[in-house]
Amino acid sequence: MSRIYDRVALIGLGLIASSMFWAIKRAGLAGEVTGYARSAETRDTARRIGLCDRVCDTAAEAVQDADLVVLCVPVGAMEQVAREIAPALKPGATLSDVGSVKRAVIDAVGPHLPDDVFFVPAHPLAGTEHSGPESGFAELFDDRWCLLVPVPDTPQAPVAQLRELWQGMGALVEEMDAEHHDLVLAVTSHAPHLIAYTMVGVADDLRRVTDSEVIKYSAAGFRDFTRIAASDPTMWRDVFLNNKDATLEILGRFTEELFALQRAIRTGDGDHLHDYFTRTRAIRRGIIEAGQDTDAPDFGRQKVIK
Amino acid sequence: MSRIYDRVALIGLGLIASSMFWAIKRAGLAGEVTGYARSAETRDTARRIGLCDRVCDTAAEAVQDADLVVLCVPVGAMEQVAREIAPALKPGATLSDVGSVKRAVIDAVGPHLPDDVFFVPAHPLAGTEHSGPESGFAELFDDRWCLLVPVPDTPQAPVAQLRELWQGMGALVEEMDAEHHDLVLAVTSHAPHLIAYTMVGVADDLRRVTDSEVIKYSAAGFRDFTRIAASDPTMWRDVFLNNKDATLEILGRFTEELFALQRAIRTGDGDHLHDYFTRTRAIRRGIIEAGQDTDAPDFGRQKVIK
Repeated sequence: MSRIYDRVALIGLGLIASSMFWAIKRAGLAGEVTGYARSAETRDTARRIGLCDRVCDTAAEAVQDADLVVLCVPVGAMEQVAREIAPALKPGATLSDVGSVKRAVIDAVGPHLPDDVFFVPAHPLAGTEHSGPESGFAELFDDRWCLLVPVPDTPQAPVAQLRELWQGMGALVEEMDAEHHDLVLAVTSHAPHLIAYTMVGVADDLRRVTDSEVIKYSAAGFRDFTRIAASDPTMWRDVFLNNKDATLEILGRFTEELFALQRAIRTGDGDHLHDYFTRTRAIRRGIIEAGQDTDAPDFGRQKVIK
Repeated sequence: MSRIYDRVALIGLGLIASSMFWAIKRAGLAGEVTGYARSAETRDTARRIGLCDRVCDTAAEAVQDADLVVLCVPVGAMEQVAREIAPALKPGATLSDVGSVKRAVIDAVGPHLPDDVFFVPAHPLAGTEHSGPESGFAELFDDRWCLLVPVPDTPQAPVAQLRELWQGMGALVEEMDAEHHDLVLAVTSHAPHLIAYTMVGVADDLRRVTDSEVIKYSAAGFRDFTRIAASDPTMWRDVFLNNKDATLEILGRFTEELFALQRAIRTGDGDHLHDYFTRTRAIRRGIIEAGQDTDAPDFGRQKVIK
């Protein structure tokens, strides 16, 4: 794979940025990768583990002469970072981000950018429940989608170049507008996360079932919820606050459906339940056929090292 | 491992029964294992793949002379099967089951049993999203819990013997009373399943997000829901209809919490969200420490064979 950017700057050094660094190195996609994190502890960790070719003590220093700058901070921190780095951005540079919501990021970041910088928001649909500079790995984006959400009037060249970078990191790339992105993600990610957080909270609250019982017997469905509900609290707080409308809309639809199923349970309407469960089973089939999961019977069957 | 029963009969030949057969064979826990399934097609499949030492064409024939009979049919079918086999049960035999609810099974099955048969209900907390006679494997119960729910006045010996069998199949065994079992499972399994089914149904209904988008971008949290929501529809219909009170209670608590979080999103109360998400993250840590999952960052990272 040939070099796509001479210099890339990663602002924020968590799971996504650290995975980007290792993926960029794996394929030799950039000449130099600089990095910056607000916390001195994170910067020290990054230096210790060799994360980034150069770790800088200010964001402005990290973006100096960078051809691509990627904001990898929680959505709620994007505006402040944009303000800080805007004066230091190189003319002709591309600015991107990896935030899980796009309309709010565009509105927060866009106004601070100089006219001679190209803004190409992006969102890689990949992650684990871990966070921090030591959680990244080069394979995180392999065969996962990365959605590019270019703002109107962006020329084709910087979009195409960023697409090449993501493909070089292993991702499949599509373009989408910001509003549609936020709705699709509300369905496939944001609402499911809130629901998982809620269910885990309920279990924890229930005094008649002990914590140790919840934990011991978690294999039976609940465990996957706890995995989702272990994701980074700050990141998810910002996601919900910044994709409010779409998330609330989907949750409204969800509650409506849930009430209908609860009523079917209460009234003993077995046909309604059976039909519903048969339909959802078919959707799973589609996901396996689309290559986004395997058919291996591993639900509840993670290998446990004793 | 030494033989624990001379003859075991498995009634119903789905995921659990077929896994029991392979686990019993792996450790030599029984002399002969007979099997019966209502569908001729399932019986043919069982004969073809060597599932059970002998597949019988009636349930009564399968239980003849069996020291242990295990009902592995959906909860809603238990009463009918109990009626059919009761006259053929050997005096002194143990009858058990693997149903996901216990109070309703005890009430449905108990009254049909002769006085000289010991009834020891059980529930192995193990499964995959697959079903049918070909879905079983010997390792399904390894390191998983099996809950025994003996009815009052059952002597110790048959309970201890069944415990040995489950331990021989790799499971960890605990005893619990029926009401507590049903509440614990409502929290750790039944409510999470209904919630996952609901969310997958909502995604499928939403006309502004295409099916293909839901499927393509499912890695971001939603995918684990589809896995849960792919479980056997008949089994789950029966679970909800037969653990109605506990499931509705937990769903009521869930809705209450969800509304509180929705309100926090609507009013922009980031602290409430952050505190909640921090608390649920700690629960995940407990599950990993309890050995019921690994810490590997595999969320959304199933290996996909292209």
